[in-house]
Amino acid sequence: MNDRTRLLIIGGDAAGMSAASQARRLRGADDLEIVALERGEYASYSACGLPYYVSGEVAHADDLVARTPEEFAERDIELRMGTEAVGIDLKRGAVATVGADGRQGEERFDRLVIGTGAVPIRPDLPGSDAEGVFGIQTLPDGVALRRYLADHPPRRAVVVGGGYIGLEMAEALLRRGAEVALVEAAAEPMGTLDPDMGRRVREAVCGMGAEFFPNAPVTGFETGDDGRVRAVLTENARHEADVVVLGLGVRPNVDLARGAGLDIGPSGGIATDARMRTSAEGVWAAGDCVESFHRVSRAPVSIALGTHANKQGRVAGTDIGGGYARFAGVLGTAITKICGLEVARTGLNEREAEQAGFAFETVTVESSTRAGYYPGAKTMATKMIAELGTGRLLGGQIVGAENAGKRIDVIATALWNAMPVGEIASMDLSYAPPFAPVWDPVLITARKLADKVR
Amino acid sequence: MNDRTRLLIIGGDAAGMSAASQARRLRGADDLEIVALERGEYASYSACGLPYYVSGEVAHADDLVARTPEEFAERDIELRMGTEAVGIDLKRGAVATVGADGRQGEERFDRLVIGTGAVPIRPDLPGSDAEGVFGIQTLPDGVALRRYLADHPPRRAVVVGGGYIGLEMAEALLRRGAEVALVEAAAEPMGTLDPDMGRRVREAVCGMGAEFFPNAPVTGFETGDDGRVRAVLTENARHEADVVVLGLGVRPNVDLARGAGLDIGPSGGIATDARMRTSAEGVWAAGDCVESFHRVSRAPVSIALGTHANKQGRVAGTDIGGGYARFAGVLGTAITKICGLEVARTGLNEREAEQAGFAFETVTVESSTRAGYYPGAKTMATKMIAELGTGRLLGGQIVGAENAGKRIDVIATALWNAMPVGEIASMDLSYAPPFAPVWDPVLITARKLADKVR
Repeated sequence: MNDRTRLLIIGGDAAGMSAASQARRLRGADDLEIVALERGEYASYSACGLPYYVSGEVAHADDLVARTPEEFAERDIELRMGTEAVGIDLKRGAVATVGADGRQGEERFDRLVIGTGAVPIRPDLPGSDAEGVFGIQTLPDGVALRRYLADHPPRRAVVVGGGYIGLEMAEALLRRGAEVALVEAAAEPMGTLDPDMGRRVREAVCGMGAEFFPNAPVTGFETGDDGRVRAVLTENARHEADVVVLGLGVRPNVDLARGAGLDIGPSGGIATDARMRTSAEGVWAAGDCVESFHRVSRAPVSIALGTHANKQGRVAGTDIGGGYARFAGVLGTAITKICGLEVARTGLNEREAEQAGFAFETVTVESSTRAGYYPGAKTMATKMIAELGTGRLLGGQIVGAENAGKRIDVIATALWNAMPVGEIASMDLSYAPPFAPVWDPVLITARKLADKVR
Repeated sequence: MNDRTRLLIIGGDAAGMSAASQARRLRGADDLEIVALERGEYASYSACGLPYYVSGEVAHADDLVARTPEEFAERDIELRMGTEAVGIDLKRGAVATVGADGRQGEERFDRLVIGTGAVPIRPDLPGSDAEGVFGIQTLPDGVALRRYLADHPPRRAVVVGGGYIGLEMAEALLRRGAEVALVEAAAEPMGTLDPDMGRRVREAVCGMGAEFFPNAPVTGFETGDDGRVRAVLTENARHEADVVVLGLGVRPNVDLARGAGLDIGPSGGIATDARMRTSAEGVWAAGDCVESFHRVSRAPVSIALGTHANKQGRVAGTDIGGGYARFAGVLGTAITKICGLEVARTGLNEREAEQAGFAFETVTVESSTRAGYYPGAKTMATKMIAELGTGRLLGGQIVGAENAGKRIDVIATALWNAMPVGEIASMDLSYAPPFAPVWDPVLITARKLADKVR
């Protein structure tokens, strides 16, 4: 058994466990030993499901867990829970560990996959570590918040940051009956959309009862004598709060990688090639901790998202398993459901297109999710951005009612293929009254934009 | 006024009126006179909405009408109702007409657009013209059927032909409380899908209460002494019927074009170039009466569908207006909703791929419309067909619950770009628990098929 290759994986979530599973598919247990270290008490779970767990729409934390350590064990993958990697020694091929009981150890490796994920951005402000201030990045975060909400039913909640997680949490808190204030540094929420589209999202959130405070960077948190948060402070206001949820985004967790001397890229994630190989021989990285190639801007970006983590982990596992696979890059596609609105985007928004040096035009079209006469037809707004001259699609955004959002995948597929909007307008997309008007919103928007860029 | 160009349009529906509208956008009324002839009492309506009108989900026939003659008049387009074109004299530039009152006339033209649509295939069998036997192609057909159903509430209805319209009508009749028998010449309904996918549709229709009779070509109709239909006859059975709906498909209506000596293509539709110009100078054709280039098989096909009619009409109108546009061809994309199932297809099915000479592999994947733990997650089946060796996608089919069907547009967009399935599997499609599992069904299917073709 001692001449087996030993694959060690740091991080038992999407990236790491996809790598483990794929490596196992390609190499049997007599050839490859696989051990994954997970510092927490949950592994292989859907972080994207957290808001629905906090709202109660998903009943149990375990519902979010895709596979248990026992299930991995059946495939000869050892998933060791409560074991934190605290240092990587590349020369010796060893990872220093600390167990949940504080015991130190060491794990040898021949091959290493780093899947350390992301860490929430927490403001370095007075009171940010008060009781009742929650980040919401991990399943234990969600469990802690839901328990806190049950123990201290909040009258008034403040959400700091109006991105995906902030808005989803605002809705979850509204569903739990709290008054919700949403405090945002920018003029509109959902900064990955353009402000004209973010406005539509803001109107939906406010329509469900939240108060929105724009242009209000947080300056601190007021704490009571009991150590619990009492208010969120901005330059011009004080927002009373029984509970505060931080939705300020995440950054790649690269401390271990940096400590080991691996190259970190300009966007802050671990640098890898398309086969997810880091700058060190025999070390791969995948998931929220790495940076990816953006297919439109052609720049490296750090985007924390389960889809990329799964794909990248699978690519790493294929490479380790002796197969061939490449991660083809990202478009920045994302979708969410906020207060009944479907919100989606792909590619570059106006600000990103400017930063990438594109000259462009945009069009926003309001149209209908179904044929106008069909029951349940509702409004949706579709925005597209295209390069001047070439007419090449650069990005798209959708905000609309039920059945609107998933159309972003059509735009993403067109973007993947660098299609000009004039050609997108002529595509043979599906039509029947329950699904679309005879000119699908994607086609109308592309057509109008084609007229504008030529 | 007499040196204006006179554009005459035969057929006041999607193709013709799109051509009219687009020509008008590009050329003012002082330069171009536009007259459209419509033989019926309705123009510019959604034929695809007919089943929903018959079922009662759409209340009024007028709801299906996109624009009235008065609205066209406001844009200086004269839409002359109840006027049938009965002959085209290309040499003299004139069309012979007959009015609703039987009066004969003649319309001169400088430019002509033929948008004569399709005619339902009616079997030449005994009793096929009995009272109570309905084709369902035009809005008057739908009005007549709905009136008949109100006057003679059927105990037992027979639908002949299990294609889109047949199945939609079967559901509409079930909704009206009739017993429904579906009589089909093939082994499974929905012949534009492969039988393994058609089976899923059949199960849904039968689950809603219809009886399905496969391998049962109709041999005739039994008629009562009152002239009304009493039964549908097949080789081995007799199906009692108070009302019969024929869903045997349509063929291009090319009688006028053929009479004028225009080229008719091998698929039976009027032959045009990509600018929708027929074989005669100054004569365009568009919509269900023409044949189109299929982008995958590279063969001409006749597909009657509103989306193509609208796009082709617009191309013709652009050309007539002095602009430049081409119709880029079709993929055979289609979608419908049957008894709660969403059913969609694009590209070639197995039979069509064989006919086109492709060697191929297929994969069918059952997965989920949403993250498995998210409320409302349901099953969907996705099938893809790819060429051996190149891995190029050839077609896709989807049968599944709510939110499944519109994913066909992602497959259609990939197909439009002739993507290999291995690359489709790596695309950055949107993910959030309410919308998809972390690996979207499209990605999983493409990935599994990529493994199979390589």
